[in-house]
Amino acid sequence: MVSVELITVGDELLIGQVIDTNSAWIGRELGRIGAQVDRIVSVHDTAADIGDAVGAALERADVVIMTGGLGPTKDDITKKTLADLFGMRLVRNPDVFEHVRRMTAERGLEFNELNQAQASVPEGCTVLPNRVGTAPGMMFSRPDGAGGREKLLFSLPGVPFEMKELVSEQVVPIVKRHFSLRSVVHRTMITFGLAESAMALAIAPWEEALPGWLHLAYLPNARGIRLRLSAYDVDETSATAEIEARFAALREYIAPYMLGYEPSSVESAVAALLRERGRTLAVAESCTGGSISARITALAGASEYYLGGVTSYSNEAKARLLGVSVPDIERFGAVSETVARQMAAGAMERFGADYAVSTTGVAGPGGGTPEKPVGTVWMAIAWRTEKGETKTSARLMRFSELREQNIERAATHALNMLRLHLLGMSAAFQQTGML
Amino acid sequence: MVSVELITVGDELLIGQVIDTNSAWIGRELGRIGAQVDRIVSVHDTAADIGDAVGAALERADVVIMTGGLGPTKDDITKKTLADLFGMRLVRNPDVFEHVRRMTAERGLEFNELNQAQASVPEGCTVLPNRVGTAPGMMFSRPDGAGGREKLLFSLPGVPFEMKELVSEQVVPIVKRHFSLRSVVHRTMITFGLAESAMALAIAPWEEALPGWLHLAYLPNARGIRLRLSAYDVDETSATAEIEARFAALREYIAPYMLGYEPSSVESAVAALLRERGRTLAVAESCTGGSISARITALAGASEYYLGGVTSYSNEAKARLLGVSVPDIERFGAVSETVARQMAAGAMERFGADYAVSTTGVAGPGGGTPEKPVGTVWMAIAWRTEKGETKTSARLMRFSELREQNIERAATHALNMLRLHLLGMSAAFQQTGML
Repeated sequence: MVSVELITVGDELLIGQVIDTNSAWIGRELGRIGAQVDRIVSVHDTAADIGDAVGAALERADVVIMTGGLGPTKDDITKKTLADLFGMRLVRNPDVFEHVRRMTAERGLEFNELNQAQASVPEGCTVLPNRVGTAPGMMFSRPDGAGGREKLLFSLPGVPFEMKELVSEQVVPIVKRHFSLRSVVHRTMITFGLAESAMALAIAPWEEALPGWLHLAYLPNARGIRLRLSAYDVDETSATAEIEARFAALREYIAPYMLGYEPSSVESAVAALLRERGRTLAVAESCTGGSISARITALAGASEYYLGGVTSYSNEAKARLLGVSVPDIERFGAVSETVARQMAAGAMERFGADYAVSTTGVAGPGGGTPEKPVGTVWMAIAWRTEKGETKTSARLMRFSELREQNIERAATHALNMLRLHLLGMSAAFQQTGML
Repeated sequence: MVSVELITVGDELLIGQVIDTNSAWIGRELGRIGAQVDRIVSVHDTAADIGDAVGAALERADVVIMTGGLGPTKDDITKKTLADLFGMRLVRNPDVFEHVRRMTAERGLEFNELNQAQASVPEGCTVLPNRVGTAPGMMFSRPDGAGGREKLLFSLPGVPFEMKELVSEQVVPIVKRHFSLRSVVHRTMITFGLAESAMALAIAPWEEALPGWLHLAYLPNARGIRLRLSAYDVDETSATAEIEARFAALREYIAPYMLGYEPSSVESAVAALLRERGRTLAVAESCTGGSISARITALAGASEYYLGGVTSYSNEAKARLLGVSVPDIERFGAVSETVARQMAAGAMERFGADYAVSTTGVAGPGGGTPEKPVGTVWMAIAWRTEKGETKTSARLMRFSELREQNIERAATHALNMLRLHLLGMSAAFQQTGML
């Protein structure tokens, strides 16, 4: 297995000004060709830190990919540092010089000494032309790789679109030529509705029966638990077939909770069901504040099945826009089963939709009471029978003290109620545990 | 300066399935108290990789913070690995056991053996109680720090909201007590409406006049440009006063674009204005799909000024729930100035609000036409005069081809229209540049 290490250079990463998104992208791209990223290291723009990280990475890995520190300004020192590390002097590269000259001219910029300095590269490195920027990529090689193969060190700009261009056009083809790579296969099943520990116990027999070359990972977040099966250094076709078969077998254990393969989600599962049945949806939100609607409409083509929603943050709005009974609000409170059901029925009727979902609860931090503490959420769905009568189903859940979590979980569970109803699995409400 | 290193554990980071956002957040939090993150390392969930990373980090740093690998499932091995590294055996912690028992009970979950195992911690580590999750944080110490001070190793869950809770409530106070930290002051002004280059030119005289000990950073994203002033090794009170004075002077150059200090945002700026004036808001969303409402209600206490909103994704909904004229929709189209104004006026009236904001546009990828390409968005605000007449103001913007960006930018610009109106700066609509 070809081992890759990434080194990202820049103070902005360490003080948290910038999130390192380059490394994840490179990890995915190299995984596709069967090379494995085994470590990611972020360091300051200092010669000592860069030198230390490069030396250690080249000891361990077959390929090292660095990003950042190649800009024209004083604080960018990666190129100079690599030249020193490899004992090379900086010499002007005529092709890069001409490229930068043309590029600055096209952009109406002065071709100043800083731009010109970008055309100087360590003598003896391989220049990787950068079509979309002024800083060239560079490749260095060291003869001490496994089986006499050279180890490769790539230095790329940190600007994401320049980095991506160089990885796709240069690094990936070079690595594929230089090493004999087999495949890495990852397939991820999105699940929702079972807590991680309950999931692990429920699927234990399935997990224990997995072959040793298939690695299972649990990836929990507020929108579900992702189950990833990974196979390294394998034949892609047979490995993929085996993984598909294993996930198919998983339905025997947790069918109601399986949403589909990544990038699936509760909302995209609901969208697919509504689409294939030609049905429409409306929502009525109180504690989720519009986030159910926002998640649905984040999906392209939502207008095919989504008619709209009402965020009723006041009791008056619940009454006026959704037709919720004011006496019932006074009698049961805005956070109640009755109001949740009336909100869903009202949204279905007002929007002329086939289905509706509603939420009403105490998101927090304020507004909690002994009977209805922060995290208390009533949610409901509404639909019509063949005879055209309106039916509703409601559910009470208690989440955390954290507003953001309460909103995200309530929205996800409300959408999941509808998903289970559309699948005729409403019984699973009862089994459904919390995340 | 106290040196900190971060170790993030998880194959999902290395294969690019998950972007490491925890490290940037921790870097910011520690920077605020004067501790500096000098390295971030991401490794596989293997005892060898974790042990190697921990050993190397403890050689270099005063504080090591690990995240990830503390879940209840087989693939999470951080706790066991640390116990082995520190030569401690795992013993049940009664407090954690009781906490997990209570937490699972509250969530209606079985208290199974996997949850119970989460209550086992390395004997001799310091348990950091996790109020919001079942995996406790842990602190280990080593006596070989500089000046006889102990070095500290923290192991935290990787789930962001649990990690944040533990860093804020436990790690930061412990580090502040344990080390004498030099004073670092960061103050960040959020701006919106000017592109980065235009911003840099507009404030050049101000920037050049900054004293050498104040460091300026530009941090652009889709919701604005953050301007951060940092001062290291200073008297906090006087440095803060100087920074406040500098930002006050900045108003002379870009007043209409300044939203306030981090963690400010367009929505929190609008919220503050409505709160202090005792006014209320409603929204009518088409292309933004509920995301304006979701952003407003993500703020605690939104119910004080936010009455609610309608997401009218169909023409019928625009007519029935917002009173938009059907003939006007047919004549001008749903994406038009007329419809945007009627949506805002309708929302203000139906919710009985003092102000309303509306959006209608083509988010894409589908739905574009030559006259109204993807990215075309009409937005409007509505308010009442003293005499009680309804007034509206509308604005046309053209964004990108990317649905997600179009939604985020349209929502931000629409909220900013209201902010500028509330400040009597509507004229700034004209100056306002695109991001």
